[in-house]
Amino acid sequence: MGVVVQNIERAGEDVIAALGEAGVATVHEAQGRTGLMAARMRPIFAGASVAGSAVTISAPPGDNWMLHVAIEQLQAGDVLVLAPTAPCDMGYFGDLLATSAMARGCRALVIDAGVRDVRDLTAMGFAVWSAAVSAQGTVKETIGSVNVPVVCGGALVNPGDVIVADDDGVCVVPRGSAAEALAGARKRLAAEEEKRRRLAAGELGLDLYGMRERLAEKGLKYV
Amino acid sequence: MGVVVQNIERAGEDVIAALGEAGVATVHEAQGRTGLMAARMRPIFAGASVAGSAVTISAPPGDNWMLHVAIEQLQAGDVLVLAPTAPCDMGYFGDLLATSAMARGCRALVIDAGVRDVRDLTAMGFAVWSAAVSAQGTVKETIGSVNVPVVCGGALVNPGDVIVADDDGVCVVPRGSAAEALAGARKRLAAEEEKRRRLAAGELGLDLYGMRERLAEKGLKYV
Amino acid sequence: MGVVVQNIERAGEDVIAALGEAGVATVHEAQGRTGLMAARMRPIFAGASVAGSAVTISAPPGDNWMLHVAIEQLQAGDVLVLAPTAPCDMGYFGDLLATSAMARGCRALVIDAGVRDVRDLTAMGFAVWSAAVSAQGTVKETIGSVNVPVVCGGALVNPGDVIVADDDGVCVVPRGSAAEALAGARKRLAAEEEKRRRLAAGELGLDLYGMRERLAEKGLKYV
Amino acid sequence: MGVVVQNIERAGEDVIAALGEAGVATVHEAQGRTGLMAARMRPIFAGASVAGSAVTISAPPGDNWMLHVAIEQLQAGDVLVLAPTAPCDMGYFGDLLATSAMARGCRALVIDAGVRDVRDLTAMGFAVWSAAVSAQGTVKETIGSVNVPVVCGGALVNPGDVIVADDDGVCVVPRGSAAEALAGARKRLAAEEEKRRRLAAGELGLDLYGMRERLAEKGLKYV
Amino acid sequence: MGVVVQNIERAGEDVIAALGEAGVATVHEAQGRTGLMAARMRPIFAGASVAGSAVTISAPPGDNWMLHVAIEQLQAGDVLVLAPTAPCDMGYFGDLLATSAMARGCRALVIDAGVRDVRDLTAMGFAVWSAAVSAQGTVKETIGSVNVPVVCGGALVNPGDVIVADDDGVCVVPRGSAAEALAGARKRLAAEEEKRRRLAAGELGLDLYGMRERLAEKGLKYV
Amino acid sequence: MGVVVQNIERAGEDVIAALGEAGVATVHEAQGRTGLMAARMRPIFAGASVAGSAVTISAPPGDNWMLHVAIEQLQAGDVLVLAPTAPCDMGYFGDLLATSAMARGCRALVIDAGVRDVRDLTAMGFAVWSAAVSAQGTVKETIGSVNVPVVCGGALVNPGDVIVADDDGVCVVPRGSAAEALAGARKRLAAEEEKRRRLAAGELGLDLYGMRERLAEKGLKYV
Repeated sequence: MGVVVQNIERAGEDVIAALGEAGVATVHEAQGRTGLMAARMRPIFAGASVAGSAVTISAPPGDNWMLHVAIEQLQAGDVLVLAPTAPCDMGYFGDLLATSAMARGCRALVIDAGVRDVRDLTAMGFAVWSAAVSAQGTVKETIGSVNVPVVCGGALVNPGDVIVADDDGVCVVPRGSAAEALAGARKRLAAEEEKRRRLAAGELGLDLYGMRERLAEKGLKYV
Repeated sequence: MGVVVQNIERAGEDVIAALGEAGVATVHEAQGRTGLMAARMRPIFAGASVAGSAVTISAPPGDNWMLHVAIEQLQAGDVLVLAPTAPCDMGYFGDLLATSAMARGCRALVIDAGVRDVRDLTAMGFAVWSAAVSAQGTVKETIGSVNVPVVCGGALVNPGDVIVADDDGVCVVPRGSAAEALAGARKRLAAEEEKRRRLAAGELGLDLYGMRERLAEKGLKYV
Repeated sequence: MGVVVQNIERAGEDVIAALGEAGVATVHEAQGRTGLMAARMRPIFAGASVAGSAVTISAPPGDNWMLHVAIEQLQAGDVLVLAPTAPCDMGYFGDLLATSAMARGCRALVIDAGVRDVRDLTAMGFAVWSAAVSAQGTVKETIGSVNVPVVCGGALVNPGDVIVADDDGVCVVPRGSAAEALAGARKRLAAEEEKRRRLAAGELGLDLYGMRERLAEKGLKYV
Repeated sequence: MGVVVQNIERAGEDVIAALGEAGVATVHEAQGRTGLMAARMRPIFAGASVAGSAVTISAPPGDNWMLHVAIEQLQAGDVLVLAPTAPCDMGYFGDLLATSAMARGCRALVIDAGVRDVRDLTAMGFAVWSAAVSAQGTVKETIGSVNVPVVCGGALVNPGDVIVADDDGVCVVPRGSAAEALAGARKRLAAEEEKRRRLAAGELGLDLYGMRERLAEKGLKYV
Repeated sequence: MGVVVQNIERAGEDVIAALGEAGVATVHEAQGRTGLMAARMRPIFAGASVAGSAVTISAPPGDNWMLHVAIEQLQAGDVLVLAPTAPCDMGYFGDLLATSAMARGCRALVIDAGVRDVRDLTAMGFAVWSAAVSAQGTVKETIGSVNVPVVCGGALVNPGDVIVADDDGVCVVPRGSAAEALAGARKRLAAEEEKRRRLAAGELGLDLYGMRERLAEKGLKYV
Repeated sequence: MGVVVQNIERAGEDVIAALGEAGVATVHEAQGRTGLMAARMRPIFAGASVAGSAVTISAPPGDNWMLHVAIEQLQAGDVLVLAPTAPCDMGYFGDLLATSAMARGCRALVIDAGVRDVRDLTAMGFAVWSAAVSAQGTVKETIGSVNVPVVCGGALVNPGDVIVADDDGVCVVPRGSAAEALAGARKRLAAEEEKRRRLAAGELGLDLYGMRERLAEKGLKYV
């Protein structure tokens, strides 16, 4: 408690960008259906799509002091990830903090708590995935930690992990397996092209995926 | 369990279309305030308005196999209605299934669970009312049933019932009483025209509906 | 129970308007982080921003009779605030009531329950902050009260209090301290200008707010 | 709306009693994992175990009038099942209604809403499974129906269905398949005896159920 | 913010004791179905029944400092009532604070947050009604207020109000109307005796309360 | 996915036992207020108090196959910890699995999902902390992993970590810091003895902890 880790490793920017293009659903599948945050993590505006390196924050409920500390640790392309140490829906983050984070090249905030000034943030184009929107103010009294492992939205996030976020939610890709996840994502995307074409032409998934026999074995009856 | 009913009856397309135009709130009122699904069933994009015949799916939590089975049973103008057998917010349905369903003429999905690829679905104009948005992947291991009665969003849905859905939520109209519900809806819409005009002109509901006497009888005091 | 208070005092229109311009987050901070309603109170469409005088309603669950009574008490610039006497997500309010309320100059509805006809309300530009969207119909059988103190969204609202609402939620400003809250809000807004400029230029909050020493005292370690 | 069905059919008392002895988990399994109410339906005291015939009530939120109507329809061995027409946690039922129901031979109440006087009910030994405990009073203003199909706790209940309830929750057995469910339950119970003995002796489920090969086929790796 | 009101008025001890004997459901009814806290406020052990004068606490989320301040303000027969300024389920209160509060004659704690050491509190016989049980520790960094009006469990509590709590929940009786509430409660209790006797003898509520005619007028049909 | 780690390290039994005696609240404090699971994790019966080594399970929603696999990995004194890969309240575990687990010396189950046969489990004295009680049956179709890191109840659990659970909830102590946590817990317990004695004698926390000056500095006003 009360530690700021200043040097963290990050994945390569090209891998990060490609994971972002693949999107949350594909990346989550590509890494064996792991890493997805809970469905309560929603974007404050539709259409945002981001990938970046996690700068993590463990903060007490209702105390946003560590956000100021974390901003100093940001590099261009990072994503702030804040996990409160107990459930809390207060508004830790608003337009001033966003201004400061953007000045450091920060791409987004992922927070398992509340955010405020959402109209300003939307106008600024600063993407946020949060568990709540709330104007409720926080204090600056108790320290937490920056760049330590946190559980955010029910998912483990290590500093430097790749965060992929879009309208479907937020997925965490461990830094060490980012390249592997990307390879898997690319394979999926390639395979989906052909499937989409055939399904659009009216072919059934039952046939395309060869499911009929196994369904019959399981005992499915048509009446 | 494990049954696919292949031939279901549907209401007439003109009745279905007219119920859709009347909208959820009016139809729900017109059939005695019944048939409404729970408020957790929300559209993935604003402005969608749909009516169609229910092709129902009873599926295990986290298993979307039966969606493929159900798609074969679709006719143009149908709405898929999926009820998991236990609460579940996983993403059963995404853009590939939507492509396949649209190729069969499906109008929408109503699902008391999660959906993913919501940006793609929005771009495709495929309407979904769901309890959650989640990229969490599902398996294809356990069979369920298609076109059996289900409880979805707290409402009983029989296959072939008319589903009406818009920004206010989702309402189920039993096939057998669709014509009667439509007649009631038309009566309400006609009556509302006049009321809207008078209220807009500043007349009070207290006078328009003649409420003052009954309020006084109940003991309402003005101070 | 069963009382309608007909003459309530309101804050000055200029103060109300200025509080509305300051917005929820700023006003909430300016009055010592009090008065905010719970995060479940969400706008039915993005971008609405309203301030007005509260005409309060205490209503039974699933009974919207008192809305008709309250509308007669409205003056131009008022905001209806409805608190059910037990948790309820039914749709108390739709386009006919909105037509009537708008004819009286009402600016918005704040309701710790459900609302319906949201597409119509959006088209009419009638702003609503609610705990739910639901088409579920209500009855007119049991009386309640108008212009009595209510607890709405977890916040105490006295009739004539100033309601400020925007994308961040809803804040209640007691009528008697509205001028003071406004003064505080203006001070904050002025101070924020300079801060925003400096943060945008890359200055850190740690330096701008002089936090480094106190963080060290609390034991924060950089590693 | 507004109907009381006076003559309903019930299952045989011996079948009902035997289903009650089998218990919720076994009966639910025996009928293909169907019929279970949602986990929010909890007993007000531990150790209660009941089976009986459903007398169903569809009631408006916050209105307990139909309970008085339903009590007249009770026969000895019946279970009251109340479903509100919208989510509601108010206290529909207390010690006076329990006194009246017990005088008619009623065995329990299952209610997807609230109950009160729980200390008295516990002292009287009147079992209740409810979604909430709340002293919040209800009105008697709006009629509903008795002995019509209802959705309670997410499960469809027809009048005369067998309700089985214990510490694990509440399960509905359709009257027409009660005998079949009982036969299945008895088969399970017999099979479990032997399994319990072998598991208690230290045999592993992996061996008892012959799971090892199929796990290996699915790709499970031991490291 | 940051105020401790040292002298508060309390209701007479005999009125308080009699309200406690009447119990939550009766008192809530006797004062027009007002004052009940939300159903999430549950006792940590069954069978507790308490009435006392409210010493109120407004505390920040996750900060229990004001409990120490409030304990100094306790008189024998008081009940601590803590409302956090934002939703919070952390454990503000445990066995040491209970020891201290009991030494001052405190009867119970009502807290719209969490409590811990519940086994010790149960052994000590110190009653608590809370929204959660949680061992999560709190800090002592930010001040709040003692003996100011608070909204706890959705109900307004003024210091010195009478708190009545039992297995049905928690009810607030405004100090100024405590005698009136008691009179109403006594009337109800007297009337219930006779009703209970007649209902136990098999008389129906339909007849006892003369409901049949009004039900018929509302349109109830027997089939 | 699909891995069973067979050899895990465990903390010393004496350390584990002593942490169990210290209890959840003390241990959680002793390790810097970390490791606590969410408040939804509740015991199925009051009074249970357990400490043991975690054998972890990552299982798909509604699939309890991995429990059978995990039981083979149990040693005397272990605690099963199951985390579903998506939110799920189904009943993964009942009396047969408990019989098997007890035969292997298992002390308890901690599960962020549902459990059933709770009356039998209570009679057997097998302690369970779960997010729900539900009879809903699960399948055995999809593999997961045993003895991999999991997030359960919002807390990270590595296999072999010490699980401490009692009426206050569940706390995870990393195996590597178990001795340190115990030392801290012992220090706290020793200090609490003296505090409890002085508080019971009527001394105020304000004086015992020397809080008055700091409260005054923060601006607390007595009126």
